[in-house]
Order: sequence, then C-alpha cells, then structure tokens
Amino acid sequence: MTMDDVKPLFSKVEHVHHLIGKKWVNLIVHVLLEEPKRFSELHTIIPEISKRMLGERLKELEECGLIRRAVIPERPVRTEYSLTDKGRELGEALGHVELWAMKWL
Amino acid sequence: MTMDDVKPLFSKVEHVHHLIGKKWVNLIVHVLLEEPKRFSELHTIIPEISKRMLGERLKELEECGLIRRAVIPERPVRTEYSLTDKGRELGEALGHVELWAMKWL
Repeated sequence: MTMDDVKPLFSKVEHVHHLIGKKWVNLIVHVLLEEPKRFSELHTIIPEISKRMLGERLKELEECGLIRRAVIPERPVRTEYSLTDKGRELGEALGHVELWAMKWL
Repeated sequence: MTMDDVKPLFSKVEHVHHLIGKKWVNLIVHVLLEEPKRFSELHTIIPEISKRMLGERLKELEECGLIRRAVIPERPVRTEYSLTDKGRELGEALGHVELWAMKWL
C-alpha cells in the first residue's frame, strides 16, 4: 500500500480506536467474545457501569455494526447482545493489544 | 484472569486506544515500524500534519515510552525518532487492527 492508500485507512482506524478507547467499550467487546449476553448479564459482570451508560455503549457498538441486538420471543421477552462477524474479528485483533498491555503496562 | 484482574488492565488499555485514536498517532507508529526517522522525514511522509502537532504527537508517544528521541552528534546535529521495544510490540499488535480495518472498513 502506498501512503496515499494508507492515510484514508488510518483515518478510519483512528475512529475505531477512539470508540474502543471510551470507558468500558473494550471490556464489553471482550466479554461478548465469550458468548452472547443479555443486558442484565452484562450489567452483573460490569456493575461499575451505570445502566444508562451501558445502554449508550451498546448502542454505539450496534451503530458501528460491531454487535447485534436480538429480541428473543420468549416469555418474558429476552434481549440478547452478540458480536457480528465484524465485531468478533475486531475483538480478536484487540486481543493482541490486550496481550501487549499485560506485558508492558 | 478474573474480572477483578481484567478491569484495571482494560482501564489502562483504554488509555492506549485513546492515544492511538488521536489524529496521526497510529500512522506515525506505523511509519516508525519500518525504520527510525528524522523529524523532517516524518513531516515529508505526512505533510498533512502541522509541524507543531507532529512535535506534540511525538512528545506524547515519548512520554508513554513508545518512542525514543536520539540526538546524533553529527554536523549538523541530527534528531532521530525510533520505536522502543514497547512501542514496536504495540505497533505489531496494532497491525492486527489495521488488517481488520482493511477488510471491514
């Protein structure tokens, strides 16, 4: 890739890091890598985040196509969050940064 | 790792993504992965960035221990920027996110 190809790509990559750098976002992705979770399950795992902020973070991740929200027609109705393929592959890539952090931070 | 171990780590990881998400930071790391560069060389490769901002970005990366600034006692004196081991390994980890971005963005 030439620098002219690389620059627009890195501009997009910056936005991803900006999102992932927001409080709790990377951890949410990390937790969802394991398996889909309900809102209440996510909140049990990360009680430090307010429900309002958790809702906002999930919405941001959904808008970027990284997670999907599925309403499961049971009684009572269940809402489940899971990573899309795009989100799962990002989560795996972020795993390399997490390993780096375990070594260096 | 338990969630109690993971949370402080992810808090640190967020700061890394916050830094990498700043305009031009990831590209600077990417360029330095190839080989050490002088300030003027970096500015030639990324003329879109002002010299003032390039200086600020390099200082931020240096403060995080990701790059080092070496003054080479030649005539005229040369200042060269290179990645530390910590910075190189982060750059390699970020490469996985770049590959993800090439596929998905």
